[in-house]
Amino acid sequence: MQLVTEENITDLAVERWGTARDPRTAELLTALVRHLHDFAREVRLTEAEWMAAVQWLTRAGQISDAKREEFILASDVLGLSMLVVQMNHRLDPRATPATVLGPFHVEGSPELGYGADMSQGLPGTPLFVSGVVTDLDGAPVPGAVLDVWQADNEGLYESQHADVDEARLRAKYRTREDGSYCLRTVAPLGYTIPMDGPVGELITQTAISHFRPAHVHFLLDVPGYEPLITHLFQEGAQYLDSDVVFGTKAELVVRFEQREPGETPDGGTSAEPWLEARYDFVLQPTA
Amino acid sequence: MQLVTEENITDLAVERWGTARDPRTAELLTALVRHLHDFAREVRLTEAEWMAAVQWLTRAGQISDAKREEFILASDVLGLSMLVVQMNHRLDPRATPATVLGPFHVEGSPELGYGADMSQGLPGTPLFVSGVVTDLDGAPVPGAVLDVWQADNEGLYESQHADVDEARLRAKYRTREDGSYCLRTVAPLGYTIPMDGPVGELITQTAISHFRPAHVHFLLDVPGYEPLITHLFQEGAQYLDSDVVFGTKAELVVRFEQREPGETPDGGTSAEPWLEARYDFVLQPTA
Ligand SMILES: [Fe+2]
Ligand SMILES: [Fe+2]
Repeated sequence: MQLVTEENITDLAVERWGTARDPRTAELLTALVRHLHDFAREVRLTEAEWMAAVQWLTRAGQISDAKREEFILASDVLGLSMLVVQMNHRLDPRATPATVLGPFHVEGSPELGYGADMSQGLPGTPLFVSGVVTDLDGAPVPGAVLDVWQADNEGLYESQHADVDEARLRAKYRTREDGSYCLRTVAPLGYTIPMDGPVGELITQTAISHFRPAHVHFLLDVPGYEPLITHLFQEGAQYLDSDVVFGTKAELVVRFEQREPGETPDGGTSAEPWLEARYDFVLQPTA
Repeated sequence: MQLVTEENITDLAVERWGTARDPRTAELLTALVRHLHDFAREVRLTEAEWMAAVQWLTRAGQISDAKREEFILASDVLGLSMLVVQMNHRLDPRATPATVLGPFHVEGSPELGYGADMSQGLPGTPLFVSGVVTDLDGAPVPGAVLDVWQADNEGLYESQHADVDEARLRAKYRTREDGSYCLRTVAPLGYTIPMDGPVGELITQTAISHFRPAHVHFLLDVPGYEPLITHLFQEGAQYLDSDVVFGTKAELVVRFEQREPGETPDGGTSAEPWLEARYDFVLQPTA
């Protein structure tokens, strides 16, 4: 009969989960057992703490739905998401670095023309972002699709609004023959992550800031190149030093230049002051 | 500006979560960050695997309710529950060892008299369990309450039945002046853990047996002694060697003796064959 002891329980559990038929599944589950047990041993987890963890996990699952992903948020604030992103995108230093996807990307955004406005009259300062998409050697990549999304002036994404049924602050733009792109939106604002759930409950027990600095999300999935999921951050924005999801990288911070009313990069004119950001995305060819 | 890299992300996250105001919370959260990151680095977790884990955790939370605790089950089958039990109950070798509580204990069971039947006519072979409760030196502990519960002949606990509104196969018994106790029930059967959720989904990818050997649960929370949460297992029962929750210990396996119709330990008689188990619980005084 198998005599379970404090000393052999980890070996027994590793042996069992090592029977997974798929070798990678066996590798993942046995490593999970070892690291979970190591954690419990190191902190000498009490039964009350164990029960609190069980209840925390249950609440995190139960608060999640189509508009909310509490476990992605947990992974983000623990730095796990950013670690996984970086391990899986060890790009050439010349390439634009990746950052977290976040839980708010929506498939199937409408494609808009060069310089078209994805903000559709929502409040905010007009912002034009333009530049070129190139390969590592600076050669333009024509026809590259930039999938762009951002939060509104309340700090909410389309999927967080119950009442929005058309694309809101999200669109796709395609580079021209010379690799150039141009999009119009409103300047993003910093926002808080949702603090009314289990993740917020943990953060309020610490000195951690629960805000993200102002940013716009970009996804470039171009054939022949490594897919790039990234953000552009506004230079000087609040919370750049303390992004709650660890998403900021120096290479992704861009100056938003103040512009007077007049001609705009889309070939039109603006009657009010506007902001201009220029950024060149550099893609790494697939190996 | 904080430049996040694959190399410094763990230190940055540890530093942040170390700001928890309660020192134990800081210890737990920083250790969690380190072990979680170590796991991800060791297996070089892919983004698809990370997303599968997020979805698994979400499903586990969503399938849980008042009658089902999928995260306790996950902890049980990973050996974590049994590790935590053992770390927190490092008892004298003379004391009865602890095992997992499991998710099916119900508070407030009715107290029954010496030898009374907690099975109330449910199908099964009559089983009497009797013995004494003593301290480490063998001195009887009078007035000790044994909180007892078990599964029915379908392998289900009271809380798993939607339609049961009175105590089912659970009761409290109190030791007499000489430390003796006696309870009547029906012989327990081995049972499967719930396999229709995320935990079952993992187990079916392995060669792991999803059964528990026949057992009766006991909880003795006696003033002046360490609380004891344990099981008694039937000697020779199927699955003793492969208990899916790692709960078996040699000291907790008891012979169920076959008895012919006739006198029973409660002072009555039985018209049918019955089983008799004798077990002396040994409690450790609180330090
Ligand atoms: Fe965002
Ligand atoms: Fe049980």
